[in-house]
Amino acid sequence: MLKKITGGITSPKGFKAAGVKAGIKKSGKLDLALIYSTVPASVAAVFTQNTMAAAPVVVSRLVAEKGTASAVVINSGCANACTGSQGLIDAKAMAHITAEQLGIADHEVVVSSTGIIGVNLQMDKIDMGIKKAVEQLDEKGHENAATAIMTTDTFAKTCAYEFEINGTPVRMAGIAKGSGMIHPNMATMLCCITTDAAIAPLILKQALTEAVNVSFNMISVDGDSSTNDMTCILANGVAGNAMIESADSTEYKALTAALTEVCIFLAKQVVRDGEGATKFLEITVQGAASQVDAKKAVMAVAKSPLVKTAFFGQDANWGRILCAVGYSEAAADPEKISLAIGDVTIVKQGMGIEVDEKALKAIMSEQDIVVTVDLGLGDYTATMWTCDFSYEYVKINGEYHT
Amino acid sequence: MLKKITGGITSPKGFKAAGVKAGIKKSGKLDLALIYSTVPASVAAVFTQNTMAAAPVVVSRLVAEKGTASAVVINSGCANACTGSQGLIDAKAMAHITAEQLGIADHEVVVSSTGIIGVNLQMDKIDMGIKKAVEQLDEKGHENAATAIMTTDTFAKTCAYEFEINGTPVRMAGIAKGSGMIHPNMATMLCCITTDAAIAPLILKQALTEAVNVSFNMISVDGDSSTNDMTCILANGVAGNAMIESADSTEYKALTAALTEVCIFLAKQVVRDGEGATKFLEITVQGAASQVDAKKAVMAVAKSPLVKTAFFGQDANWGRILCAVGYSEAAADPEKISLAIGDVTIVKQGMGIEVDEKALKAIMSEQDIVVTVDLGLGDYTATMWTCDFSYEYVKINGEYHT
Repeated sequence: MLKKITGGITSPKGFKAAGVKAGIKKSGKLDLALIYSTVPASVAAVFTQNTMAAAPVVVSRLVAEKGTASAVVINSGCANACTGSQGLIDAKAMAHITAEQLGIADHEVVVSSTGIIGVNLQMDKIDMGIKKAVEQLDEKGHENAATAIMTTDTFAKTCAYEFEINGTPVRMAGIAKGSGMIHPNMATMLCCITTDAAIAPLILKQALTEAVNVSFNMISVDGDSSTNDMTCILANGVAGNAMIESADSTEYKALTAALTEVCIFLAKQVVRDGEGATKFLEITVQGAASQVDAKKAVMAVAKSPLVKTAFFGQDANWGRILCAVGYSEAAADPEKISLAIGDVTIVKQGMGIEVDEKALKAIMSEQDIVVTVDLGLGDYTATMWTCDFSYEYVKINGEYHT
Repeated sequence: MLKKITGGITSPKGFKAAGVKAGIKKSGKLDLALIYSTVPASVAAVFTQNTMAAAPVVVSRLVAEKGTASAVVINSGCANACTGSQGLIDAKAMAHITAEQLGIADHEVVVSSTGIIGVNLQMDKIDMGIKKAVEQLDEKGHENAATAIMTTDTFAKTCAYEFEINGTPVRMAGIAKGSGMIHPNMATMLCCITTDAAIAPLILKQALTEAVNVSFNMISVDGDSSTNDMTCILANGVAGNAMIESADSTEYKALTAALTEVCIFLAKQVVRDGEGATKFLEITVQGAASQVDAKKAVMAVAKSPLVKTAFFGQDANWGRILCAVGYSEAAADPEKISLAIGDVTIVKQGMGIEVDEKALKAIMSEQDIVVTVDLGLGDYTATMWTCDFSYEYVKINGEYHT
């Protein structure tokens, strides 16, 4: 039903994109991306909860509230965070320059920045970069746009799908960078999604929230959530499906399912590119007494430095996993908890059992490892994706100097 | 007023201690400690909040509730955690053997274990060890006792003070091991305090809670809180002061001040011995709108892997500190926050200011570093002690195999 297609974020009809060198990154790499819908689109976005939210987050929140937008402009190399009133002036100017060049209103431009905290934007470069990007806008500009938002990322993160809404073929695609909890200084998780589906802004916000809750909100690299996190979606309706107006409709469900797939795909990509990561861990807590408990427990396990270093060391150290569940504040009973790594059960009713050490060792040496904790108390489940904690993580974050 | 004295936990009158080789540790080192009051003492204790609490925690909770005890028996090398019903039977047997040998009741013995999770106690060795320890009980046994509770600790943690309660000289001393959040597998923070002051059990519990809240509850090494944490105090009244019965008295305040000093001293020692630590960080958040906010903010900073790796790299990366405050859920205003490292202010009203780079570099190269965040919103303050995050931490916890 959901078919992978090529063409990245410009594969949905009516979208163009560009990625250019504005000169903000000292490396001289692409550092400014523009995504443009040729017709006004419904917009929805979710942002970091960090009280030190960066200036572009403050500006884009207002855009998202209005519900309609035509462009997303993103620079890398400078986060425009902790920059005070000048930061706000610069973020607004970034929207204004883009709007002017495209002949749209300022409040139709989503603005985003990623990079170093505490440094002001070089507005002459931003100005030049935006003008260049508008000139280069193209239906095949998706690769440059995906590349221009990268910071410490080692690969560009992109996906595109086609599916049907009530018989009408619809496309949805996304690009992402970084990890929400990994680069609060080099900065942050950003994601931009495009679709040519027609959907009302309020309903789109609900769909995005649902999708983000089980994708970007369920990944962790080091537990630090940043000042600039944003995921936004533009839905321009060019595909021609009947406008989705209700969250109870099958059309809404089809769109949300696709959106969830896009978000989970990109979220997993972000974890795979986690700083210093050597393992990709999928951790599920099932049998919880409530959804809140399932989430608390899985988050504690996924964020524990002791659990993460154990996986780096390829050690099936189940005591650390049970211990993390224990301090998670989730309801748990030491006599009912069970634990499996891959398909090998190693804890039953809170006690270690004899296992096939050879089979377990083989699983622990894999790059992708599935961990399943069963609390034995109810029917609620939560899954989280994370990576291990390696020497390389300490190196990257200890040796990076401001 | 508070005078340091020698003699460790046996310096308060009426206390004896021993530390013996029971054979639980494969290394053959001291692994069983016994602390004994020759007269029944008021007892109070605080325990881990981990729902996977170890068997000895379950047993000792009941002892502490009764309010009177004469002995504390502690083994290292095995945490008796995640050991199910057999674990409970073993913990009770440990109390019973000790009681029988000392001629006291089972419910007068505090039991504690520290070491590997998921392994049952070898009760023949525990039995032999307790009998040996009772034979060796001595008023000079403090050093062996302090050494016998060590696991991955690199030095024994001990202190002793003399002070006055209403003109009567009183002594208070303590031993501790590990770090509450660093060894959930090798296991846990333990602390045992002795005093010859006379104080009623309920009031003693209140004093202990006050002291622990600003000491052991304010240290972090890696954010993992364990299955076996315990701090207990025995107060036997041999000093002869009038029994402290009210928390409003000046006597209570004198005792609580000394107890707080003991707890802070030992808590700092635990952080100094944090796995892989190269820096000792004292982090204060002041100017918070409430006590809860001050604590939330300081905890987020002290636990952030990005902040901790930055200090390991001797980098004054203030963006990471502000970012951690931002996601702490404490009330904070980006335009009011200030930050100093040592005596160098580097952030004012949320923005980085020009600093004496040479002075800052000198401070960052020190072993002990003081960090002060001012939220500029109110009068509440909280201080936390933590260490940096080094390659060695990853090595110790990645290479330690179950």
